[in-house]
Order: sequence, then C-alpha cells, then structure tokens
Amino acid sequence: MNTSIIAVGTELLFGQTVNTNAAYLSENLNHLGFNVMYHFVVGDNDGRLEHTLKRALTDTDLVIVTGGLGPTQDDMTKETVARVMDAPLYLNEECLAEVKRYFSIRNREMAPNNVQQAYIPENAVIFRNEAGTAPAFAVNKGDKWVICYPGPPRELKWIFEDSGKDFLRKFKEKQIYYRVIRTIGIGESDLETLLMPLIDNQTDPTIATYAKEGECTIRVASQRDTMEEAQAAVENMISRMNNLIGSYIYSYDDEELKSVVVHKLQRQGLTISSAESCTGGAFAASITDVPGASKVLSRGYITYDEEAKISMLGVDPTVIDQYTVVSSEVAIEMAKGARLEAGSDIAVSITGYAGPEADEGREAGNAYIGYAYDDTVGAVELFTKRNDRAWNRNYFRLMMLKVVNEILDEIK
Amino acid sequence: MNTSIIAVGTELLFGQTVNTNAAYLSENLNHLGFNVMYHFVVGDNDGRLEHTLKRALTDTDLVIVTGGLGPTQDDMTKETVARVMDAPLYLNEECLAEVKRYFSIRNREMAPNNVQQAYIPENAVIFRNEAGTAPAFAVNKGDKWVICYPGPPRELKWIFEDSGKDFLRKFKEKQIYYRVIRTIGIGESDLETLLMPLIDNQTDPTIATYAKEGECTIRVASQRDTMEEAQAAVENMISRMNNLIGSYIYSYDDEELKSVVVHKLQRQGLTISSAESCTGGAFAASITDVPGASKVLSRGYITYDEEAKISMLGVDPTVIDQYTVVSSEVAIEMAKGARLEAGSDIAVSITGYAGPEADEGREAGNAYIGYAYDDTVGAVELFTKRNDRAWNRNYFRLMMLKVVNEILDEIK
Repeated sequence: MNTSIIAVGTELLFGQTVNTNAAYLSENLNHLGFNVMYHFVVGDNDGRLEHTLKRALTDTDLVIVTGGLGPTQDDMTKETVARVMDAPLYLNEECLAEVKRYFSIRNREMAPNNVQQAYIPENAVIFRNEAGTAPAFAVNKGDKWVICYPGPPRELKWIFEDSGKDFLRKFKEKQIYYRVIRTIGIGESDLETLLMPLIDNQTDPTIATYAKEGECTIRVASQRDTMEEAQAAVENMISRMNNLIGSYIYSYDDEELKSVVVHKLQRQGLTISSAESCTGGAFAASITDVPGASKVLSRGYITYDEEAKISMLGVDPTVIDQYTVVSSEVAIEMAKGARLEAGSDIAVSITGYAGPEADEGREAGNAYIGYAYDDTVGAVELFTKRNDRAWNRNYFRLMMLKVVNEILDEIK
Repeated sequence: MNTSIIAVGTELLFGQTVNTNAAYLSENLNHLGFNVMYHFVVGDNDGRLEHTLKRALTDTDLVIVTGGLGPTQDDMTKETVARVMDAPLYLNEECLAEVKRYFSIRNREMAPNNVQQAYIPENAVIFRNEAGTAPAFAVNKGDKWVICYPGPPRELKWIFEDSGKDFLRKFKEKQIYYRVIRTIGIGESDLETLLMPLIDNQTDPTIATYAKEGECTIRVASQRDTMEEAQAAVENMISRMNNLIGSYIYSYDDEELKSVVVHKLQRQGLTISSAESCTGGAFAASITDVPGASKVLSRGYITYDEEAKISMLGVDPTVIDQYTVVSSEVAIEMAKGARLEAGSDIAVSITGYAGPEADEGREAGNAYIGYAYDDTVGAVELFTKRNDRAWNRNYFRLMMLKVVNEILDEIK
C-alpha cells in the first residue's frame, strides 16, 4: 500500500525540531510491508495542510499525519482532516472520559479547552493514548485512509506500539515477520560480501544491511501466508547467516550493545570497572545509562593525565617512559590497576588520541584498549584514520563495549 | 521569499536516516529572513522527484534540493533539475579540475564515473565543495530558483557556510543581523514572562524563544536597510534583555555550556575534578568532549556505590549513615574529597536517583550537586519530577555544568 507521511508544525519549518517522527514511522511502515513514497512537512496553517493532504491522497492510498492534535487554537489537523474526508467532528463521550481520567489520575485540573480533545471525525477508528490527552484515529473515504497521531514522539510511539501497528497489519493480506540483528567490528561492504551467497537470488526472506557509526544492522524479513511460515523462514535464514557472520553478531533482537553487556554481566553475576583516558568517562556513562547498572559497576577511574594513571591506578612510570603513554603496555597496566583497586571481576581501560589534532607527533584516532580478568590481561589496538574527535571518542567507547562483550562470551 | 526544501533519498523513506538537513537549512533560512513553507522527501526516483519539484516551484519561489548529486546511477537530481528548469547539462571544465584535485590531494584514484560530477546545468551559479566531489549550484528560470546541495550533512554545511549563505543574502533587499543567546535554569514560559516588556509591541528586533532539555535559547534578529543599523538594533536589545534575564544567560554566541565552561577554565587558568555517582562519568565525558580539555581536567572519580565514595573520596561513613547517601552533606563530602585527591582548583560532585524506579523509598529525579573551591563548599538540590532515566541524567549533567559556570563567574 502506497503511503505518505505528513508532519504538521511550524517548529519543524523553523528548524527548531527535527522530524524524527517521519523516520520512526517510515522504519516501522517498511517493516510492516508498506511502501513509503513521500514525506511532507507543513506549518500550522489549515490552507496549506488541506492542500498537502489532498495531494498526498491523490498520490498515495494511506496518509499518516502527525502533529496539530493539541487543544490550542493553532492545532487544526482534526478540523482539516474532517473536512477533506467528509467526516464531521462529534463529541465522543468515551474519549471525553479518557481525557478526564488522564487529568484525574495526575491530580491535575482539566482546562476547559481540553474538551476539544474528545471531538473525533465521524466513523473514525479511535486509538487509546495513555501517554497524553490527544486521541489518535483512523478515518477513511472509500479506499483512501488517513491516520492521525499526536506530534510528541513519546505519545506517537506509545500509541503506535499499543494499537497502531496491529491496525496497520489488517491492511496486509500477507503476514510479515522480521528480526533485526546487530553486528560490530565489520564494515557494511565486507558484511555484504560475506552474506552474498545468501543475498544472491534470494527473494524471501529479504536481507537488508544498514551501517551507522562503527556498527552494522541487518534486517531479515519474510512475507508469507501465515505468521508461522514467515517466522520459520526468518529463523532458518538467521541460522544460515550465523554460520557466515556469527562472530560479528552481538544481538538478535535489536538491543543496544551497552544493554547487551550490562545484561550479560547481571546474568553472569560479574562486576566491571573502567579506567578511561581519551574517552573521559563515556564508557562508564554508557554502562550506567542502563537501569540496574549499580549491580555491575561500583566505580570507575577517569585518568586523563599521566600523573592520574600513576597515582590512581598504580601504573609504573617506567612503563610509560619506555612505551609512551599511548601504548598497549600502559593500557594493560591501567586495566590491571583498575581491577585491583576496584576489586572487580573484569576491568577495561583505554588510552589514546581522540584528536582533532595529532598529539606529540602521533596521529589522532589511535588508541589502545586494555583488559584484565581472571589471570588474563591483554590489549587491542584501534586506529580510525579519522580527524574527528566526537566520532573517534564514540568509536573508542563502542570498541570498549565490544571487548567486554567478547570477554563475557569467553568466560561464561 | 517563499521557500521549500526537497530532500532526495530512499534511505530517508526507509527511516534509516533522519532528515537533519531540512532542519539545518530551515533554521539558517529563517535566520536569513526566508519563509520556509514546505519540506518534501522523495526517494531516488526521477518521476516522483520531477512531480515534487514542479509542485514546489508552483507553490514557492525558491526550492532547495539536497541529495542525489553523487556519481552513481541512482543519483538523478541534476538531470531532473536540468529538465524542469530547461537548462541542459554540460561538462564544466573548472568543476572537472576541482574533482580531479579532490582525488589528487588525497592520493586517491579517480573512478571514471566521477567525471559525471562535473556536469552542471547551463547558466548555473556554481558553489565550491572542498568537503566532497559533488559541486552545488543554483539555477533559475525567470523568477523561480532551484539550489542543489549534496546530501551528506558535512558537505552541505561546508558549502552553505563557505558561499551558500552569501548567495542567499543577495535575494534580500534588507540586511539581517541576529544573535543567539543561550540560557539555563529557567523555563521558557517564565523567560517569556520576564521578557514581556520587550516583546510587547516590538516589531524589530524580533525575539524568539526556544526550549530544549533544561535549556532555553533566544534569537534576537533585526532587519534594516544596512547591516550596521541591524547590528546596532540587536546589540541595544540584548543590553536591555541583560537587565531582565542576565543571570540566566551563559552564552551570547550560541556556544554550548560545556564549551563555555572549558574555555572559561582555560582562560582563568583553573583546573577541575569531578566525583560522579548517578551520572556515571557523563559530566567528565562532556568536559573532555571539548578539544583542549587536558589542560583543565586531569582526573575524575566515578563512585557509583557507597564503598567507592568512602574509599576513593574519603567520605565519612557516619555522614552517610546520618544523612543517607543522597544528601547535600554527602555531595559536599564527595566534592571536598575529589578536590583534595585530585589537587584541583575546583571540584564538583553529584549523588542522586536517576530512575526510572524510585530507590529506597526515594523518588527518582532527586539529586544533590556538591562543590568545593577556595575555602568554599556548598550543595544544590535538584528535583526533576520525571520518571525518565535518560532525561534525568542529562539534566543532572547540565546542572553540574551550570554550577561550575557560576563558580567561574564568581571567582574570576
């Protein structure tokens, strides 16, 4: 089904807000087998919204509108959609009860203009919204459908997950099943080369790769008559992929690497500590991003200068003199020191040059990750060839997570 | 001048890429006094691009197209624009020399299809692109203009800053000058209330506020016959704003708080250390985000559990017993300990509950920032009322920067 997405909001045309809703909906619509052909953005102006909506309905069969469903004067999505779809607004008592309930459970007074939220186009399918006061709805005129969602991404996502996805599935005769696999440590083109025997001449399941900042994601999707068949086709393909690229895969469920690592540490009952130089705390911050991190990380060391490495981690100054501060030897000393000081099961460290400029004659983008666990110590050299501080630091952080993830697989 | 922006790229319709180019261009176009009326996204499909381009040229006078300028088969922006604007492509020798130069200074072989990059619509104005191989250009048919930029954000920004902005200025009879002021510690509606005497009945300069994650930005812009007049009007307005909201302003030049803080530390020749619990290293990571941070931060402590606070920072266990670990007393002990251990001029600390769940009967979103410098110690209580771990942690980190920024103003 050909689809377009219209985002309504002057803040988007001012560039104050990035249209992440269009990306979120597009990704999900594609996963569900819908063909997204256009994105449109219009301001809070009913003439231009009507103009755009009519055009979208001419070119595509399903139009998803986000934004402009609030209770204030400049929100006119509902009125415009009602007019274009010949479905006049009426006061829906159930919606009104929901809006009242929203305020009452939060002990907040309902402003009179919130009654406005409960007006819905005639014959619309209504979607619950427990994340806000604006109900979402779908309305049709013959074969053409318009679905309206509120603009705040949190509300859109809540509704889409709760009922929006299931509603869209009804439009599809075939059943779609997909899984998203995440890999690290291999570039997109190398990954495609390895997967070529599976991609060539393959029509279903489909395999799509997508690269971003040191990671690569693979979506495996099947479209069959029943969900069971689609699921079996995807699982079979994944086990074949496993033989080819298993060593690069860190999640079969689109889980972020930091969550994978924290959850493995929790399951294995292990603790970790960190000693960071060029990442300046970013590794520990991403471990503690994950709820429940206090069970696995009790402390971390940010040792930005040499003196800190010596006094906080007990790095031997002669090792620094002999190998320089950015070396695998110093990285290992840092990890050993952190593990000893923190009394953790595993310790990971980093020392390197983030850039943007070369430092002490060394190129930016070069770093060493050290690790220590059981009787094992070691180091990994990184070299990014990039002169981009933010990119390098993020890459270093991801590679620290990768090293820890591999250690956890090793010792489980 | 009424403007629309078309982004070309199937990856946008798949939701793999977020259309940040539209936000970047919109913000800049608005600053330059252009009225952005529509955003469009189309895939790599010449029929749909032509359809969209024609519609955009009907509804608006200036159309900016991003993407689809690469050397490969699926890049057809140039061909489509040339057709719609009646300006056939020709091989521009200067562009060809530029493309060759791009490869030669990088010691890379130029693939034959890169010659394609040097074809430009007849009578187009060409913009240099030192960040890539695709030249940008502007072409007109009567009063209607189309400007094409490459899709990679880095290339778009390079060209726009280098020559794109100046080219657009020529369309404006009036001269526009603006400054972007950044504030922290006050909500948007409170800020507007304070600024009301200046906003009311004010037509030029214009004052626009924009809130995001604990911060609030104010854009002050003037449109006059000469740049000098516009500049004087803006500066005068800013000094009047200073009297009303000066205490909340941390930058008059749209600089991020972390950069402001690091640059002040550098200028004042002061060093800082950090002791972080619930932010888990995010404060130190944002200080070390800024190039040159090694001059101001030598070390930081991530003390996630009680034992770490006691052994790494020397926090007195009886203080924890008496006041609990999330208290202003413990925050101050942490800052004092970090300052003593690190030997830094200033130390800042945090202890709190990031959530999502309440911990030990305390609500998520409650935290204390401690600080120590000279003979001064103190603490600030934070309370976010949000049950959102990521939001809380980011807010805590920003507030630590705010506290340090205020200390730096105090002791300068």
